[in-house]
Amino acid sequence: MKNEPYKTYLDESELPQAWYNMRADMKKKPAPLLNPATLEPVTAAELERVFCKECVRQELDNDTAYIPIPEPVREFYRMYRPSPLVRALVLENALGTPDRIYYKFEGNNTSGSHKLNSAIAQAYYAKEQGLSDVTTETGAGQWGTALSMASAFFGLKCHVYMVKCSYEQKPFRREVMRTYGAEVTPSPSMSTEAGRRINAEFPGTTGSLGCAISEAVEAALKLPNARYLLGSVLNQVCLHQSVIGLETAAALEKLGEKPDVIIGCAGGGSNLSGLIAPFVGRKLRGESDCRIVAVEPASCPSLTRGRYAYDFCDTAKVCPLAKMYTLGSGFIPSASHAGGLRYHGLSPVLSELYDQKIIEATSVGQTRVFEAATLFARTEGTLPAPESAHAIRAAIDEALRCKESGKEETIVFGLTGTGYFDLKAYASYNDGTMDDTVPSDEDLEKGFAALPKMEKA
Amino acid sequence: MKNEPYKTYLDESELPQAWYNMRADMKKKPAPLLNPATLEPVTAAELERVFCKECVRQELDNDTAYIPIPEPVREFYRMYRPSPLVRALVLENALGTPDRIYYKFEGNNTSGSHKLNSAIAQAYYAKEQGLSDVTTETGAGQWGTALSMASAFFGLKCHVYMVKCSYEQKPFRREVMRTYGAEVTPSPSMSTEAGRRINAEFPGTTGSLGCAISEAVEAALKLPNARYLLGSVLNQVCLHQSVIGLETAAALEKLGEKPDVIIGCAGGGSNLSGLIAPFVGRKLRGESDCRIVAVEPASCPSLTRGRYAYDFCDTAKVCPLAKMYTLGSGFIPSASHAGGLRYHGLSPVLSELYDQKIIEATSVGQTRVFEAATLFARTEGTLPAPESAHAIRAAIDEALRCKESGKEETIVFGLTGTGYFDLKAYASYNDGTMDDTVPSDEDLEKGFAALPKMEKA
Repeated sequence: MKNEPYKTYLDESELPQAWYNMRADMKKKPAPLLNPATLEPVTAAELERVFCKECVRQELDNDTAYIPIPEPVREFYRMYRPSPLVRALVLENALGTPDRIYYKFEGNNTSGSHKLNSAIAQAYYAKEQGLSDVTTETGAGQWGTALSMASAFFGLKCHVYMVKCSYEQKPFRREVMRTYGAEVTPSPSMSTEAGRRINAEFPGTTGSLGCAISEAVEAALKLPNARYLLGSVLNQVCLHQSVIGLETAAALEKLGEKPDVIIGCAGGGSNLSGLIAPFVGRKLRGESDCRIVAVEPASCPSLTRGRYAYDFCDTAKVCPLAKMYTLGSGFIPSASHAGGLRYHGLSPVLSELYDQKIIEATSVGQTRVFEAATLFARTEGTLPAPESAHAIRAAIDEALRCKESGKEETIVFGLTGTGYFDLKAYASYNDGTMDDTVPSDEDLEKGFAALPKMEKA
Repeated sequence: MKNEPYKTYLDESELPQAWYNMRADMKKKPAPLLNPATLEPVTAAELERVFCKECVRQELDNDTAYIPIPEPVREFYRMYRPSPLVRALVLENALGTPDRIYYKFEGNNTSGSHKLNSAIAQAYYAKEQGLSDVTTETGAGQWGTALSMASAFFGLKCHVYMVKCSYEQKPFRREVMRTYGAEVTPSPSMSTEAGRRINAEFPGTTGSLGCAISEAVEAALKLPNARYLLGSVLNQVCLHQSVIGLETAAALEKLGEKPDVIIGCAGGGSNLSGLIAPFVGRKLRGESDCRIVAVEPASCPSLTRGRYAYDFCDTAKVCPLAKMYTLGSGFIPSASHAGGLRYHGLSPVLSELYDQKIIEATSVGQTRVFEAATLFARTEGTLPAPESAHAIRAAIDEALRCKESGKEETIVFGLTGTGYFDLKAYASYNDGTMDDTVPSDEDLEKGFAALPKMEKA
């Protein structure tokens, strides 16, 4: 093995003081959220009915490049951050690649993923606003776990609407949330109007993320002193997650490394936007030409096969309209699709960056993803989350491409989390029963046909 | 919060070069293992039929204080070590204690615990000896996971006999092992004589650790090119685990801290012996008078209520006899008892240290353990393994005692692992259905009556 350090840890004192807001460096800004009734840009006042005040300010701020991280949030970050940047020496060796491969590991906290970075910030703002309760939805469970932890820390009551199939298949995820004091309800439930409507329309449905969002928003509006918190897609979330990329950039600088390509998996976009934020900034300012690659599942290909259009964020259509690469808010990936990355669209800011060709995208099939995950586990030791394994797959493919061409590159990818709660998916891979179904063109057309008509009333 | 760092990481270059062997500093050595047929000390040749050659050498070496860690093992250690020593600032704050509480966290690797420290060493020696296969048993699953990872790394085929109730209750543990290429068999199985005998005698039995050991040993003897590896109890395991304590001592020195009390949970003794090794050395050499506390479950109290006597290590009585604090090899803790720490005895070297009053012991009930685990999870963020939570309970009790007396102490405990695969146990705590059954005196007397008669034939 090459005689180089595996892990680079920044000191706690080197933890970023401020988040970086990519939008400030974008000449063409992401399209605004629209009120679905008027098709006018939503106002702060409208958003504040649902979201925390400070989060709304951050959501709408397209100009401030650096937004200070509040001291209590930094204090919490210090418990599990700075996270390590790891040199994948054993994987490099196994691939026989001339490349240097690094990964930023966000799974070394009990939420199991990067989701905690935004959860603790949003919980802090909720507390500061004097709220007693917060509501949210969770699919695979990582966000719900993170918000339960953050809520416990700040003494907030956390109400989680968990997609029913996930609630049933992942009792342990649910139990972690309960241990952190959260109330977990399978969605669609009978306790909200949205839930009752969906249950009536689709008896026996096992739910969807869009439906759980509708329920959580409704619950926040009905509780006396609550707001709704969201773990992905929104600008504020991308902002909070920039702590990942800022640390990555600082660690690479320490190592004297300039990345040639940066790779992240893309679901709603929370991890990807965070990992790439400072590198996107450099590209926007003309200081770098490194490649930035979003990796999505072939079964939910919002960038590589989606449309860039205004769409609904949730099933019951209670949320604002967002302009994003989307498969249509009714799109549901094949039931056999493992893990997260199931959202029908991609965050507006990432969608705009993709449209501007600042970032590129690729999609990968499920079996090849788990093949990469298994190789990674056996070489680097860490059992990756299925989501993260999309980035591993793409990083391995880049490394093999370099090996062939003899080019030496520096590859950086995001290892967003661990797969300890995703072993059902590993079991189907181990049993050879994984399926690689991708949506047909007809499936996609159906989704596009349901996109909202954008003529003003 | 006090303005001090949370985490102390040693540099990879500060990773210990050698393990520390406590036995070298003991005037009175642990009693030797005996051949159950002759009651004579077992010879290296006898042990080498079952264990790897180098492991046997280490097992019998009572004199060498420092045994070099082979470079390929150090190389693997560098992937996840040095592990962090964490200051429990948020927990201290919640308790309002004047103490400084530190914990050495061994859960930041995919095996989820400290078990990997010895697994990788033993797998390396197996590989060096030219073996193709290794066998072992696992109860809660941490050791089996660790050995599966280590075997994958060195290209060995790993056969795991997993206690049947655990195999059935923890399908995800099993799946991690399969992902690392291991063959996992529920024990008692029908593929060994020991298993068939136990199945015949106790139809429908859900197995025990002692029984799984018997099967794994038998399998190693029958396979053409295999040996048996064990994750606890043995001297060699205590030796390998000393890497935990050596790092802890180095980190405390960096911080200028002198521990007043060191606390570890005690099952077979692998973590405890490792954490305390250098501190025991100091006590044995008269250089320190810090307290060292072993914490065991009240439901399996081998130190606090056991006998110091020669006993069988396994159910089928194929292993050598060991002198240890024991409840008798037939003792099985209450079915409601959560997690590991179920072994009927404690490692001979720890037993001897306890007998010499170098270490002390305490036992804690299950509900209070999970109460501590939940407080720890909500303050420090990490969801602890039930095993580790025994040490947390004792550390909290020490801190509260200090708070009362106004004494300021430095408390160090071992956080051996994470509880992500133990959520069934958390569920019973969350549901209020945990039970605190402890063995009656009659139960214990039955166990003692089954201790082997030590008259030579």
